[in-house]
Amino acid sequence: MKQKENKNSPQKLVRAQGVTLWHQIQSVLEKEIYKGAYSAGEKLPTEKQLSERFNVNRHTVRQALAGLVRKELIVVEQGRGAFVRRDKLDYFLARRVRFRENLLRQRKVPSEELLKHDVVSADAVCAKALCLRPMAPLVRLRSVGSADAYPLCCTTQYFPQERFPAFGDIYVDTCSVTAVFTALGVTDYVRKSTRIMARMANAEETRLLKLGRQSPVMVVESVNVDSEETPVEYSVCVWAADRIQFVVDSD
Amino acid sequence: MKQKENKNSPQKLVRAQGVTLWHQIQSVLEKEIYKGAYSAGEKLPTEKQLSERFNVNRHTVRQALAGLVRKELIVVEQGRGAFVRRDKLDYFLARRVRFRENLLRQRKVPSEELLKHDVVSADAVCAKALCLRPMAPLVRLRSVGSADAYPLCCTTQYFPQERFPAFGDIYVDTCSVTAVFTALGVTDYVRKSTRIMARMANAEETRLLKLGRQSPVMVVESVNVDSEETPVEYSVCVWAADRIQFVVDSD
Repeated sequence: MKQKENKNSPQKLVRAQGVTLWHQIQSVLEKEIYKGAYSAGEKLPTEKQLSERFNVNRHTVRQALAGLVRKELIVVEQGRGAFVRRDKLDYFLARRVRFRENLLRQRKVPSEELLKHDVVSADAVCAKALCLRPMAPLVRLRSVGSADAYPLCCTTQYFPQERFPAFGDIYVDTCSVTAVFTALGVTDYVRKSTRIMARMANAEETRLLKLGRQSPVMVVESVNVDSEETPVEYSVCVWAADRIQFVVDSD
Repeated sequence: MKQKENKNSPQKLVRAQGVTLWHQIQSVLEKEIYKGAYSAGEKLPTEKQLSERFNVNRHTVRQALAGLVRKELIVVEQGRGAFVRRDKLDYFLARRVRFRENLLRQRKVPSEELLKHDVVSADAVCAKALCLRPMAPLVRLRSVGSADAYPLCCTTQYFPQERFPAFGDIYVDTCSVTAVFTALGVTDYVRKSTRIMARMANAEETRLLKLGRQSPVMVVESVNVDSEETPVEYSVCVWAADRIQFVVDSD
């Protein structure tokens, strides 16, 4: 428990030794993270606390923290502080892709928070993906998916409303797409195609996923089909890139 | 050809109309791009030229360009200027993943430039991926892959040197990994596993891939195996995220 006691105690840095102060601070914090003085997801002391501990100004602390961000050891969440990075979760892209199973397999507690539930007209992209005419009505669900209450992704799912007129009502009762499908006669559905891209997060994603400034996200567009190969779902899922890696295994 | 003549002619903007100047400039350029006045990959006029054309200062031009970057219509390459974004290439992750075939399928001319070729000791990650003991000697190739001479990815490939002692010599002659494998008795190899992540580019990647400042990259780690399921190659490929999307199709 010595480390736990030491990590907040004042620390003398040797000035003018060829190594900059911020680099020394970075090294101290790096060692502490590797030794487990902070656990994954734990909040680091504030800039103010660190500047007192190391007896330097906050600009120097910020440089040290930026170095740890570059080394992917911490993440800085805007307005919330710096946190020790969690290990990236493996997300398996197989024929059957289920958010809950993927997380449970890695002993994470999955949760999904519904943000919005409405009916929209299919734009060209949605219509093509779902093999519908443009402007066909779609049930749209917007949600945030989390692992152990830590946000991983924000998802927009589209379902053909004319095929599933009771979708909304059943979903409100069950909060499960699989349950809705089962009730409406789709006993199984599989992933037909997946497209993976990356870009910078926009403001809404940064807020919903509690990202740092200028963070990359991975965007996964996918189509699920029923046993007749008819598309039943098109989804666009935006993942915090620092929390996930996709795994494609050949059978 | 009217557009071609017009796109560089001086243009009057109406000040104080509720729409900021930079937003007006962004709209003009956006329309020109959509109309095809600039083709994919074409360089936009310089900031100086644009500020003369619109009679505004360069700061205003920069704001307009930043808006076009956010809309993913242009990319700004450090020190080179702004370019109209090309469509993202589809890169198919199937059982047989070949860079050249993937590009040729989309009518792009593939090329690979070898940057470095040496022998290194396997670190823990490489050893695990290739099922070798740590410190086992590996042939390492570093290269940049391009489509139509435009860089897409920088790749580091590792091959077990003890199994393929003649690898280096044959590679220097043929410049083809497939040719080396064939010469050394590996008549076919397939993708065993693929891992896809995203992060910000580092300085070297920014230079090699001609990226803009603060650009995301996608990192693909993969293992290829021979017909006996023995790993023959481990590679780490860093892709410019604005130029590629990965496609996983179920069979």
